[in-house]
Amino acid sequence: MSNEKLPSRAENYSEWYNQVIQRAELADYAPVRGCMVVRPYGWSLWENIQQALDSRFKATGHVNAAFPLFIPMSFLEKEKEHVEGFSPELAVVTIGGGEKLEEPLVVRPTSETIIGYMYSKWIKSYRDLPLLINQWGNVVRWEMRTRLFLRTLEFYWQEGHTAHATAKEAEEETLRMLDIYTRFAVEDAAVPVIPGRKSNSEKFAGAVHSYSIEAMMGDTKALQAGTSHLLGQNFAKAFNIQYLDMNNELQYCWTTSWGVSTRFIGAIIMTHGDDQGLILPPRLAPIQVVIVPIYKNDEERARVMPVVDKIRAALGSIRVKVDDRSELTPGFKFNDWEMRGVPLRLEIGPKDVEKGSVMAARRDVPGREGKSFLPQENIASSVGALLDTIQSSLYEKARAFRDSHITDVTNYEALTTAVQDGWAHAWWCGSADCENRVKEETKATTRCIPMQQPGGTGKCAVCGRDANEKVYFARAY
Amino acid sequence: MSNEKLPSRAENYSEWYNQVIQRAELADYAPVRGCMVVRPYGWSLWENIQQALDSRFKATGHVNAAFPLFIPMSFLEKEKEHVEGFSPELAVVTIGGGEKLEEPLVVRPTSETIIGYMYSKWIKSYRDLPLLINQWGNVVRWEMRTRLFLRTLEFYWQEGHTAHATAKEAEEETLRMLDIYTRFAVEDAAVPVIPGRKSNSEKFAGAVHSYSIEAMMGDTKALQAGTSHLLGQNFAKAFNIQYLDMNNELQYCWTTSWGVSTRFIGAIIMTHGDDQGLILPPRLAPIQVVIVPIYKNDEERARVMPVVDKIRAALGSIRVKVDDRSELTPGFKFNDWEMRGVPLRLEIGPKDVEKGSVMAARRDVPGREGKSFLPQENIASSVGALLDTIQSSLYEKARAFRDSHITDVTNYEALTTAVQDGWAHAWWCGSADCENRVKEETKATTRCIPMQQPGGTGKCAVCGRDANEKVYFARAY
Repeated sequence: MSNEKLPSRAENYSEWYNQVIQRAELADYAPVRGCMVVRPYGWSLWENIQQALDSRFKATGHVNAAFPLFIPMSFLEKEKEHVEGFSPELAVVTIGGGEKLEEPLVVRPTSETIIGYMYSKWIKSYRDLPLLINQWGNVVRWEMRTRLFLRTLEFYWQEGHTAHATAKEAEEETLRMLDIYTRFAVEDAAVPVIPGRKSNSEKFAGAVHSYSIEAMMGDTKALQAGTSHLLGQNFAKAFNIQYLDMNNELQYCWTTSWGVSTRFIGAIIMTHGDDQGLILPPRLAPIQVVIVPIYKNDEERARVMPVVDKIRAALGSIRVKVDDRSELTPGFKFNDWEMRGVPLRLEIGPKDVEKGSVMAARRDVPGREGKSFLPQENIASSVGALLDTIQSSLYEKARAFRDSHITDVTNYEALTTAVQDGWAHAWWCGSADCENRVKEETKATTRCIPMQQPGGTGKCAVCGRDANEKVYFARAY
Repeated sequence: MSNEKLPSRAENYSEWYNQVIQRAELADYAPVRGCMVVRPYGWSLWENIQQALDSRFKATGHVNAAFPLFIPMSFLEKEKEHVEGFSPELAVVTIGGGEKLEEPLVVRPTSETIIGYMYSKWIKSYRDLPLLINQWGNVVRWEMRTRLFLRTLEFYWQEGHTAHATAKEAEEETLRMLDIYTRFAVEDAAVPVIPGRKSNSEKFAGAVHSYSIEAMMGDTKALQAGTSHLLGQNFAKAFNIQYLDMNNELQYCWTTSWGVSTRFIGAIIMTHGDDQGLILPPRLAPIQVVIVPIYKNDEERARVMPVVDKIRAALGSIRVKVDDRSELTPGFKFNDWEMRGVPLRLEIGPKDVEKGSVMAARRDVPGREGKSFLPQENIASSVGALLDTIQSSLYEKARAFRDSHITDVTNYEALTTAVQDGWAHAWWCGSADCENRVKEETKATTRCIPMQQPGGTGKCAVCGRDANEKVYFARAY
């Protein structure tokens, strides 16, 4: 299956994306419109993402819990902006156990409301704060135009929900999680991202401020890859989340929420993939190394396989797959594992057995340049070093691509040109009018007001008025 | 909270159970009837259960994936027994994105149908078999009488779904998973279980045979703690799961499914708990050791805390919590951690600092008998050994309790007496009439026909006819 030719990215980026996912067996379409099945290879990638994020959450004092799938419709209505934002996207259960329900139940699109309700029961005193809970689960948003991983009716994610005694602590938490997402993207996924604040028109329904990490895909469009929301006292007041402070006075909590979803898999595919298929960052790849034994006959096979087994054993904790399918040619296998994005391939044939070496082929560097012979001795350390090199090369390559597609612009014409094939970095006056004009005329939106600002002031690239901050404009997924 | 007196088990077992869960902060009631919130301490226990099972699944060649939450109503109708069994328990989504849906969507009560549909797409040849996929997720069954963990509208579980080329392989898989569940229960949870086959009236809707592991709770009622179903070709025919065999002929697959859920947490609570609260088996306990520093003043505290830190560090990979809350007395802390079932408590006071020892108190052995002094030297190995002792003692204690409440019976009167406060082990002719009579007159049902049979034949304890197999009758959760 995976040996048929893939459409090139230049030819049809969207079709390339869909076919990579299906041929690499990451996911498949479900029989219900807009839903996906995450296949074992895709789920294994997600498990590695989960582990990478979860260990960062736990290291910063967060714990996991599970809140219900079903939320009473009346809960959503308690926070005005929240219900306005989410009500067009809801799946609603109206029948349970054969009977019509008195109050319809919403299948959670996000859990601020039901968690807010529970927090109001659990939090009594300042001693119960901060409350730092995360949940791994599924949510449903009734999207009209869906794409595997990027936008599906049901998706998988983590949603952190925290409550704090002061505004300052809540803001620190919001930014701490933005930083954790940035580090995860850069260090684990080799995806360069720009952390920043969303504009008012792009923020989460019910938030005071939303922050995001924004990544550039291979077609130069932006993808919001994680968000962290400062909710102020909006949900605390809607759900009566109060605590007794040290002076025994009742105060409202300050809350935050933050999430990364299976959408991130889409970011990995479109950041690193090439015309041969997927390229996975070694730290997250389900299979880090594939070993393909090379032999022409049973006699050669008998000499090669013991060395294959020895090398596999020597690689220890590195995630290795030996492709010993006898009915397929090595060439077919090479293409197959390239499509699946395995970072490193080791070939072991009769000559390697003689010479005490193995042939290593990097997925990220095609052709002869990516090939080298490694001595069988100390194979774990040389393969480990090569995986580290691949990890950092992937990051550098993606960063160089991104940076070469970001244009600093100072006027509207330059802005509209820049967003045709990249991002525009521009002073912005902060008005929704300017955002709307750009959106209507170019389809580009403000992605984020980056944390890293040049300082000083400038003129808005759209209207020419005074501006205090720079922003990224880009077409986005 | 957790220092208030718990009702004793003898007084009110059901109330004891509910209060243990809430005071130990394992779970709480959600605002939607019959739903629960699994709190961080409970979820951490579930994560340890997941890890223990998942590693056993992966070691036997299974992989994880994720299938959709929503199933078209028509899918359930394809397998006659299946839809009959599940349709009274369904939650149904009828509205999506503000519009009435053309075909209502069922929130999965279990995933045989949607997975069967996907398998029919994926499986083409004998080379694709066996297909061994597991899913961790949530399911919904609209139960009328709910209990935290034991029976909730939404619950968390794993469901394995496998497809095989032959009936023999499917049966081997079914029994392999029953064995994995048995080992998990015995080795990780210290819960003695009896593996066996369910009677026809107790089997899964759509199965050829269902197998289960049955555990005895502290009130002598039985709890089905895991199930493994041989589905024959029922779902393969309903969903057209076919493969080309080696002779290029089209054949139907043979499938299985198997699951363990958050119900197992109920089994742990009711197998090991005592009148002081929860007792957790060390291998699954979120906190294996709690250290309580003992001091009367700042001077003592300054001497004690460095030793506490040293011991904590020395315990390495053992899951340790130091309870350094300054506003609470040691006595309060002891009760608190006893309620939460932490297997081992270490007390460190000024005298221990002097003597180079720590006081260890076993949760499973109350009073002086469970206390011993351990030298601070080599603390990790002595604590590790003590945790192993606790693990095996819990198992032995539960097994002795169970065995002393199982009666071998040969006539109906003895049977009805036995099931008042225990299980009856009896010859059974296999007829539903006899099952029904026992159920109506005593509320006891057949729990399982154990894999371990005495051999030979006997007379049915209910009707006196010839019987080939022995069965367990018991009242059950």
